[in-house]
Amino acid sequence: MEQQDGTVPHIAPWASPDARARITEVAAGLAGLWRDPSPGRVAQAVREALDEHARQFDDQGIVLYAGTNVMSEAARRAAGATVSGRPSMGWPGDKYQSGLDHLDRLEVLTPALVARLVGARFAEVRSHSATMANLAVYTALTSPGDTIAVLPERAGGHTSHHAVGVPGVRGLRVVDLPYDVDAYDVDLAALPGFLERERPRLVVIGASLLLFPHRVAAIREATSAAGAHLLYDASHMAGLVAAGRFQRPLAEGADLLTFSTYKSFGGPPGGVIATDDPELAERTSTAVFPGLTANYDAGRLAPLAVTAAEIMGDGGAYADRCIAAARTLAAALHEEGFAVAGADRGFTDSHHVAVDAAALGGGRAAMARLAEAGVYLSAIGLPWQAPGEPDRGLRIGTQEVVRRGLGDAELRQVAALMADLLLRDADPRTVRKAVRRIREEARSA
Amino acid sequence: MEQQDGTVPHIAPWASPDARARITEVAAGLAGLWRDPSPGRVAQAVREALDEHARQFDDQGIVLYAGTNVMSEAARRAAGATVSGRPSMGWPGDKYQSGLDHLDRLEVLTPALVARLVGARFAEVRSHSATMANLAVYTALTSPGDTIAVLPERAGGHTSHHAVGVPGVRGLRVVDLPYDVDAYDVDLAALPGFLERERPRLVVIGASLLLFPHRVAAIREATSAAGAHLLYDASHMAGLVAAGRFQRPLAEGADLLTFSTYKSFGGPPGGVIATDDPELAERTSTAVFPGLTANYDAGRLAPLAVTAAEIMGDGGAYADRCIAAARTLAAALHEEGFAVAGADRGFTDSHHVAVDAAALGGGRAAMARLAEAGVYLSAIGLPWQAPGEPDRGLRIGTQEVVRRGLGDAELRQVAALMADLLLRDADPRTVRKAVRRIREEARSA
Repeated sequence: MEQQDGTVPHIAPWASPDARARITEVAAGLAGLWRDPSPGRVAQAVREALDEHARQFDDQGIVLYAGTNVMSEAARRAAGATVSGRPSMGWPGDKYQSGLDHLDRLEVLTPALVARLVGARFAEVRSHSATMANLAVYTALTSPGDTIAVLPERAGGHTSHHAVGVPGVRGLRVVDLPYDVDAYDVDLAALPGFLERERPRLVVIGASLLLFPHRVAAIREATSAAGAHLLYDASHMAGLVAAGRFQRPLAEGADLLTFSTYKSFGGPPGGVIATDDPELAERTSTAVFPGLTANYDAGRLAPLAVTAAEIMGDGGAYADRCIAAARTLAAALHEEGFAVAGADRGFTDSHHVAVDAAALGGGRAAMARLAEAGVYLSAIGLPWQAPGEPDRGLRIGTQEVVRRGLGDAELRQVAALMADLLLRDADPRTVRKAVRRIREEARSA
Repeated sequence: MEQQDGTVPHIAPWASPDARARITEVAAGLAGLWRDPSPGRVAQAVREALDEHARQFDDQGIVLYAGTNVMSEAARRAAGATVSGRPSMGWPGDKYQSGLDHLDRLEVLTPALVARLVGARFAEVRSHSATMANLAVYTALTSPGDTIAVLPERAGGHTSHHAVGVPGVRGLRVVDLPYDVDAYDVDLAALPGFLERERPRLVVIGASLLLFPHRVAAIREATSAAGAHLLYDASHMAGLVAAGRFQRPLAEGADLLTFSTYKSFGGPPGGVIATDDPELAERTSTAVFPGLTANYDAGRLAPLAVTAAEIMGDGGAYADRCIAAARTLAAALHEEGFAVAGADRGFTDSHHVAVDAAALGGGRAAMARLAEAGVYLSAIGLPWQAPGEPDRGLRIGTQEVVRRGLGDAELRQVAALMADLLLRDADPRTVRKAVRRIREEARSA
């Protein structure tokens, strides 16, 4: 694949050597297309990429990656509308453009359902992502130069909480909250002194790996006493929170709740800000539009409304299955000899499971080996790892395998296959065949 | 529609009285649904809203709104993939998660095609929107407290250039560039003194209404002399720029080009940053990820690649038709008696047309009346309106009607119908019937 001037395309020459090698390899495979990028050939190439991805990942893989999910059939049918390219700016009755009146129903129904689901008076559903939702909160509640306090990265603090992400865009100073490794939570004893010293305007909790609920009431008490607002980012926990499981951050004292609408929530990609406080609702909503958004994607609201209704309608059954699946998988992994986090507390209260992969060559190496066998997940930092140590954990989320119909027996097979691969040095090709069989049997069950 | 506690849902109580009235009306229509929001009923309600919108707007309306478009059939077939909920973070070969190798092809092919199309060495295609692309540029090139200079709102300066939008998120001071009403462009004579006085780090040109090309080379010379970077936001012009029409901002001297991938470009919603400068490319790309994005939407890349290939393949024919349609429509509106902008310069060099609606009760009133008849567009400020005067213009874009197959004869009919309605007081219901007929005939032609 060459530019018109004969050079390879300029894709991220600043990327790592591994990335440069892969980009060069991919570009070489596209060389013919690059010489004749006719619409038909390009359409065929992208279709092949999407289809091969779908076959390998969606149809034949076991997806334990915590940051994804598949929508229900009904939500999928509501998605993909052409309205995604129809800007609809401002509130119903006060739109910048005309002719979008029918979509007003989505703009009333969807936030009302989502708010009811998470126990909030207000829900702002127009953010493209939870990262944007977090940036809207920062914009509304802080000024450049202010401090925010967040969970350390090794304790699941997300990029959108750290200076490398949107707090850096807002020009914020970011400090790590004191963390109690044994409690899997903020260090409550150290918190008041820390807040007194650092004086953050905002404290952010809610992690990308969260096995046990935060002690929100106690954190809120200290945060409030220090004059800071408390944001709970439930991007990973939203499906459980919405079902009334795990914890109810707003009822327990958080000022604001943000979350992803896919992952455990199971809807389309997007972000939500929920709160009971009318003033915070107005300030954060205004930061979403017109602050951060011109054309929000109205096409997203339809599957989001359907997903919210499904969560409301199933009485917490899906959330319960996700949590039960996580406990089953964790126990099975533990029995196979993996170092599973939280063994003394029943492993997990959420749909997340964490494995310490230090003895397996670290999280990245174990993730790559599992991927060879069609088991997909990610490495993650663990609270007890040393400063500067690469991610030593493997993070598992059960929200997708539950939707794919994997039950206890299949989850125990998955644990055994992971052990074959990582503890007993099995051939990834053999394991991959077994992985495919599990998916096929779950489909036909 | 009531909350569980019997109150109406808390949707934007801070919105305008008009919006409050409309929200209350919509909520009343959803009351039954709210009492029983079962998944089936919610799915049916959102399907009805989407279908009614599609019938009225997509199938029967004449969409002259400049900020939208419909994708080609081939691009639509490439869209809607389930990969939108599959985070793929980092460069190919260096991903945070595993199992996404097939999508690497989209991540190499799409930016390479887009870069080639706009005459840039680098294109960053992962932004959710052009607003996010602009925020990435601000993040990369400015610090909070810095000044940027932008087009006045009445001259088409977009929300994402002004303090109410993403410059406010970055904490920037925003000043209006001096504007030459007669030239429909930045005031070149006043520019050097202005830059000397205000010392902006960044100058932003490229407007939401742009009839004639900016004199980029001259603007660049002054900007460069003052030590500022020049950003050209081609959100509206991207389809023309990509086809080699209107102007080539990077070749003419802009440091950076941002744009929307729908509108005149005709692809899926999203934003691009293009540049020839490797250092600017790295800084802005890093601001997109990890700065502003965790999960970018890989599903968007497939239709974007197809759209880029289509633009490349048609030799500028679609862009030429859009420009010709704008000139035809402008001339016809002028003959009908409308005050069309740019009459002494052939009305327009782009796919945009502007009508001064001061004599029609202002832009908003004229827009609302046209919407009653199924003609959809938006009001916009015009450079000659008084400070504080509400938007006195009507903005027209021809990118969608061209795609819908409206030719010169139909465009003249549209102009006549607009005159019937706004100048000759025709009944909107009668005009609506004629509007539907035009669409039907264009479809069967």
